Amino acid sequence: MINSGAKLWNKAKKIIPGGNQLLSKRSDQFLPDYWPSYYRKAKGVHVWDMDNNNYIDMSIMGIGACTLGYADDDVNKAVENVIEKGSMCTLNCYEEVELAEKLLEIEKWAEMVRYARTGGESVSIAIRIARAATGKDKIAFCGYHGWHDWYLSANLKNNENLTDHLLPGLNPLGVPQSLENTCFPFNYNNINDLEEIIANEDEIGTIIMEPVRNFDPDISFLKKVRKIANEIGAVLIFDEITSGWRLRVGGAHSIYGVDPDIIVFGKAMGNGHPIGAILGKEEIMEIAQETFISSTFWTERVGFAAAIATINKMENINNPKHLIKAGKMITKGWKELSAEHNLSLETMGIPPLTTFVLENNDSQMQTLFNQEMLDRGYLASNHVYTCSHHTDKVINEYLEVVDDVFGLLRNAKENNTIKEYLRGPTISKGFKRLN
Amino acid sequence: MINSGAKLWNKAKKIIPGGNQLLSKRSDQFLPDYWPSYYRKAKGVHVWDMDNNNYIDMSIMGIGACTLGYADDDVNKAVENVIEKGSMCTLNCYEEVELAEKLLEIEKWAEMVRYARTGGESVSIAIRIARAATGKDKIAFCGYHGWHDWYLSANLKNNENLTDHLLPGLNPLGVPQSLENTCFPFNYNNINDLEEIIANEDEIGTIIMEPVRNFDPDISFLKKVRKIANEIGAVLIFDEITSGWRLRVGGAHSIYGVDPDIIVFGKAMGNGHPIGAILGKEEIMEIAQETFISSTFWTERVGFAAAIATINKMENINNPKHLIKAGKMITKGWKELSAEHNLSLETMGIPPLTTFVLENNDSQMQTLFNQEMLDRGYLASNHVYTCSHHTDKVINEYLEVVDDVFGLLRNAKENNTIKEYLRGPTISKGFKRLN
Repeated sequence: MINSGAKLWNKAKKIIPGGNQLLSKRSDQFLPDYWPSYYRKAKGVHVWDMDNNNYIDMSIMGIGACTLGYADDDVNKAVENVIEKGSMCTLNCYEEVELAEKLLEIEKWAEMVRYARTGGESVSIAIRIARAATGKDKIAFCGYHGWHDWYLSANLKNNENLTDHLLPGLNPLGVPQSLENTCFPFNYNNINDLEEIIANEDEIGTIIMEPVRNFDPDISFLKKVRKIANEIGAVLIFDEITSGWRLRVGGAHSIYGVDPDIIVFGKAMGNGHPIGAILGKEEIMEIAQETFISSTFWTERVGFAAAIATINKMENINNPKHLIKAGKMITKGWKELSAEHNLSLETMGIPPLTTFVLENNDSQMQTLFNQEMLDRGYLASNHVYTCSHHTDKVINEYLEVVDDVFGLLRNAKENNTIKEYLRGPTISKGFKRLN
Repeated sequence: MINSGAKLWNKAKKIIPGGNQLLSKRSDQFLPDYWPSYYRKAKGVHVWDMDNNNYIDMSIMGIGACTLGYADDDVNKAVENVIEKGSMCTLNCYEEVELAEKLLEIEKWAEMVRYARTGGESVSIAIRIARAATGKDKIAFCGYHGWHDWYLSANLKNNENLTDHLLPGLNPLGVPQSLENTCFPFNYNNINDLEEIIANEDEIGTIIMEPVRNFDPDISFLKKVRKIANEIGAVLIFDEITSGWRLRVGGAHSIYGVDPDIIVFGKAMGNGHPIGAILGKEEIMEIAQETFISSTFWTERVGFAAAIATINKMENINNPKHLIKAGKMITKGWKELSAEHNLSLETMGIPPLTTFVLENNDSQMQTLFNQEMLDRGYLASNHVYTCSHHTDKVINEYLEVVDDVFGLLRNAKENNTIKEYLRGPTISKGFKRLN
């Protein structure tokens, strides 16, 4: 029988185009028709759906926003304290200065800070500042950077320009045509790509990339990007919205010994409470005094209080160390169990954002995995974003269930009965119209 | 002696370009060098600064975000409840559907809803949708609509295009040059302006405006705008981030009998907790399924829970009725007292957003007003954004103090001793570099 959450999802799709506010949380990405879709309560790695079924989250953990687990007591205490004391006022909250000092201690090469509430707008602020500082509009980019015009404009010339960074074949509908030829993609670990852009375009003022995500960086690649930025006088932006706070408390880039001119943080920084930060060198950030960048809700207090409490706790418990260890343990388990069950499985991503590709990305097999894991009490997909509550015990129990489900998948594959096992449609990949 | 907040402000300016995240909350806009700048606690209309001095807020009340007063018990209870139960998860929160249903009851002409966290990005979503739906990039606009490229691009051709809508002489630094000639201003209550744009530009696909703000609308003007939008097949967007929830529970437009195709809400909708909403007709909103508009923190639970609780309370206590009454009482008081003291004073704005212009906008006189009101326990400027805690008693006591301060101003003016009274620099108007 269809669950209450799935019913509500069908209702939502009629009044919210796309059903929700984030592609990665669409039910069709996990298990069309049968995904619980909505939650009443979440705590640690436990999630209760609309029918009060309890699951353990071994998937995207709020798309990587909650590395301390859901509803962390210490972060919530700090947040509730500022809500009780008023989280909005005509005056400013002092926590924004306190957080700035903390961030500048963590990223010692940076000298000034601005804030926003969401990742997309944080990156757009960084782009505005970079363009204002250089006087050049053109951008070379690598990786995912949000929904804004500057980024999607890459597809105005060729709607495959964002294929390897965002999604295949995205039409940049509603993005001004005049932005064509302002934004050029280069591939990760491929310095020739970037060199080619620089050779063909005079006016590249900004180079923006995720320093790490699905693959380990070739450190010489990162160093060459830095060198090119210096040579052409471009602002180098590292978007660490996803990679930040997982390999160390701060940006991952410093592990590789390469500093940007601007860094952007978000997601995990407030353990699920909305906050974004843009840090950079003073000579560049200063231009924010001369271009209008201003918004009411960027002044709200909760984001700053949450970030201070989250960063303090990450430091106190050495959270990145745990995230890496948990991710390695999960990845190792997947590899061993898939080998035992004769399933083809590849893994990718830094350990705290570990991913598998099952049977050469077979949608039916992945759907069956998600379905069977859900039946056994897990929110699961081919991604695990690790958190502090992914303990050895939680992971070992999860891997026992994966063992069971991989056995079922092997059986279904060998007997060619996958379709008979599937109760509903297969998962969607990428972006498609929902009905 | 300089207060602790003013000291912190000086520190902030060194590590945060512009000192904070919102022009309207900069200390130099109120009382340079002596404004308390930061708060520890805010409740109702009471604010406590870093030195625990207590003030009554008779100014912008969190730039209009808190029409139920600061830290409203009912809203905070709803917010803390969802924080305890987890405000971020891999699953979606059901409150976003509940809020959508509520909003669509309030704005009956609308059929679909999307959300964001800040006003600027909410309007940018509306613009993206309108451009995608019409296939036309050009925009005619009136009023203030945030910091984004689409809007600031109006000044690429002539840096006075935004003078009457945002600020005088703003340089659109960092906004791509290729956006020149995509965004055209028209003046409020001036249909000829809009007609001229339509006559000169073939490709206007979007008309965006604040239906009311500083002046009452000429209703025939609003109706003509609607008619023009229909005739040219443009999407009409009403930005009610500022005007919404003050004249009725919902958008002000329906008082004038004119519906848009898309409406944007923000600010007061969550009583200070960040939330924005974009509502529109299904045939237009549906295109959001085909252009990528997606962000992690738009899924966070607090904004939805806050908005549901805020709207319920606004309805239960008929908050707009109170906001209007309080605004009229304050405006009347200003007029009477200024007349008694032989001061020139004009008022403007809808009652819940009442404003005075003192002595033909004399900066020194306004600075002295702010300074003397602060000495007497008030956060005050020439704007009052009314809230439910601006009771008759609070307003009468405020007006007694205004009487006192207007007397002082008269004296200073008549004896030409304004400069002697002023302890610090005069207020800034508009946007200028801070040192």
